[in-house]
Amino acid sequence: MDVISVIRAKRDRGELSDEQIDWVIDAYTRGEVADEQMSALAMAILLNGMNRKEIARWTAAMIASGERMDFSALTRPTADKHSTGGVGDKITLPLAPLVAACGAAVPQLSGRGLGHTGGTLDKLESIPGWRALLSNEEMLSVLDSTGAVICAAGDGLAPADKKLYALRDVTGTVEAIPLIASSIMSKKIAEGTGSLVLDVKVGSGAFMKTIEDARELASTMVGLGTDHGVRTVALLTDMSTPLGLTAGNALEVRESVEVLAGGGPADVVELTIALAREMLAAAGLPDADPAKALADGSAMDVWRRMIAAQGGDPDAALPTSKEQHVVTAPASGVLTRLDAYGVGVAAWRLGAGRARKEDPVQAAAGVEIHAKPGDPVTAGQPLLTLHTDTPERFAYALESTEGTFDIAPEGTPFTATPVVRERIA
Amino acid sequence: MDVISVIRAKRDRGELSDEQIDWVIDAYTRGEVADEQMSALAMAILLNGMNRKEIARWTAAMIASGERMDFSALTRPTADKHSTGGVGDKITLPLAPLVAACGAAVPQLSGRGLGHTGGTLDKLESIPGWRALLSNEEMLSVLDSTGAVICAAGDGLAPADKKLYALRDVTGTVEAIPLIASSIMSKKIAEGTGSLVLDVKVGSGAFMKTIEDARELASTMVGLGTDHGVRTVALLTDMSTPLGLTAGNALEVRESVEVLAGGGPADVVELTIALAREMLAAAGLPDADPAKALADGSAMDVWRRMIAAQGGDPDAALPTSKEQHVVTAPASGVLTRLDAYGVGVAAWRLGAGRARKEDPVQAAAGVEIHAKPGDPVTAGQPLLTLHTDTPERFAYALESTEGTFDIAPEGTPFTATPVVRERIA
Repeated sequence: MDVISVIRAKRDRGELSDEQIDWVIDAYTRGEVADEQMSALAMAILLNGMNRKEIARWTAAMIASGERMDFSALTRPTADKHSTGGVGDKITLPLAPLVAACGAAVPQLSGRGLGHTGGTLDKLESIPGWRALLSNEEMLSVLDSTGAVICAAGDGLAPADKKLYALRDVTGTVEAIPLIASSIMSKKIAEGTGSLVLDVKVGSGAFMKTIEDARELASTMVGLGTDHGVRTVALLTDMSTPLGLTAGNALEVRESVEVLAGGGPADVVELTIALAREMLAAAGLPDADPAKALADGSAMDVWRRMIAAQGGDPDAALPTSKEQHVVTAPASGVLTRLDAYGVGVAAWRLGAGRARKEDPVQAAAGVEIHAKPGDPVTAGQPLLTLHTDTPERFAYALESTEGTFDIAPEGTPFTATPVVRERIA
Repeated sequence: MDVISVIRAKRDRGELSDEQIDWVIDAYTRGEVADEQMSALAMAILLNGMNRKEIARWTAAMIASGERMDFSALTRPTADKHSTGGVGDKITLPLAPLVAACGAAVPQLSGRGLGHTGGTLDKLESIPGWRALLSNEEMLSVLDSTGAVICAAGDGLAPADKKLYALRDVTGTVEAIPLIASSIMSKKIAEGTGSLVLDVKVGSGAFMKTIEDARELASTMVGLGTDHGVRTVALLTDMSTPLGLTAGNALEVRESVEVLAGGGPADVVELTIALAREMLAAAGLPDADPAKALADGSAMDVWRRMIAAQGGDPDAALPTSKEQHVVTAPASGVLTRLDAYGVGVAAWRLGAGRARKEDPVQAAAGVEIHAKPGDPVTAGQPLLTLHTDTPERFAYALESTEGTFDIAPEGTPFTATPVVRERIA
């Protein structure tokens, strides 16, 4: 087997054989196939595609490159969720304890933010004392004792994916649906969950800008999960506007706690409950009632125990920003658009996100939202409050909020985009 | 400027700007753009193409990455030839002294063979004492005193091309017409010739398998040369069957000397004279008579002086192979096909060519051809004689001669492919 024949096969629109895929992933992981060869192959895959058979084998080869976790010792059924990432997407924070409160075990291996989308671990790290890095034993222990755990994925899961993802990031080959799908699913399948709900975001603030691309990605991933014996469902959800009223780290933890306390913004509550129902159904618990678990405080109990089990103090005050800047409405009328991408970039530039993997993030930085699409606004009222500890960032952040919103005259008809747009199973 | 935006532009079928091209070639030469990034860009160029404006700028940027030679001190007009490479293609050997004998100066920077196509320098190195490596001063001195020089290109010419060619070789991105054209032409333009004739080979033994691809490559290169003030003409010539009756190193030198002595195979003589006429016309010497210069021995005189000026002994005996193996005709009739690729691979496997740049070649290895398409053959007569110093190679070489030829019953109509198929100016 030689790598040039594999590259040529895909370059010339051929189908890669099982043997070619197994060999190239293994040889790349071992360093026998060089980065410049894999990036040429990744570009050929991006431009010429892979069929379902090839994607399934590619995913299996990435799983086989590392260890697989095993939750079979748990008495509860396992359920996991993955979001393709968006602005203000704090759903994992209330969702994991909620689903655990309803009877499933939720092993939530999460990531950090890169670019304008936030990362679950960055958000939770704004809680004083909370630790993202757990050993496999600690992870199982928190999961067993509280029903949920949110932590960083270990290095042993799908190392081929880790190496390939870093390469794609610097070679313009991130946006390939077969590679995105196999990257996500190899980690989720290696993690060993019995059921998985995919939250595939669509819109300006998401990876997938169109419903067609989101559908293709979702059905590819559902197929991969199903082929590997994981009960998998996908919801296509709106990311044209931020989720909830905050984008940032501590800001989103605060909003998540409001949801767990039975309050919080309507869209966050709606999506949390929709995803919880899907996870519980996939885990074989269709009769559980997540709305009740939010209302009766049982989800909040799991949250407090889960945070405490990872060293965090659920009662500690969250960090607040040193400086704020308010963006006001320039006219009265109806807010008809608040662009997720613009708000996400602003939060990132304020310090909530990072440009490079090794950058630190500011716990208190981000954007508070005072009006959502469909809301009436009055000239001069606050629309956004920008938070940062480093006020020299305001000017740069304000560049990205310019043109992010539209205000139409009062009485202009407005049709809201539903939070959940489609379901693919 | 960042490399990912350049890669994305081409990936998404955009046109690269002059600034993007200049920057990416310069940054790659300096090592700021990494190999894995350039290979992703090369694959995107291979699959999405470049337009004429982009190719021209890409070529100019590669020329600008190194030094340019200057032949303006010579009293004669300069003429150069480039062949895209084929099997038995020894034409440079008789052609350079022939054109010099007719009044032009011929600075022929040549390469070594890789894979099944031979290299001019490898062939000449079978002459005892002959040196391929000359300093710029030595090269000019040989050129000035004899009218022709055939030597290795210095490291200073188009270093960006040198680096990019090595990368393309290992990443399956060799076969991109914009990259092939800019690679060839950047070196030829930097070399500083006033006129250039391109021998673009078409057929099984060539890079370009179809006349359409050969046409596209030829017209791209003619356009690049013309844009840079080099009078450029291309001939599309047949490479479905080997040129002449030998493929190898010393074997091809012997055949070239026969041509210079006024004999030699008809196809080699025809192509040598056709290319000489084009070079002389492009150099402003349309009235020169190359057929006469072959017949009267003046081309042979230049050859002897040129070989001697580079340390070679034109009277020395050429190496002969230690072992031979004869392939005979299995039936009587007409030879209707002798495949260039099969013969080229056999010569390579016998030791005439190399698999990796650092491999040595055998001077005496190769294939002698006893019948060409259109010739009558008798069952049991020799068709090919295989030559090598290492007889353990025969079995491997014979695998590649199997199925290389067809013999049809006597009287079967046969139409020969012309040596020169098209002319593009």
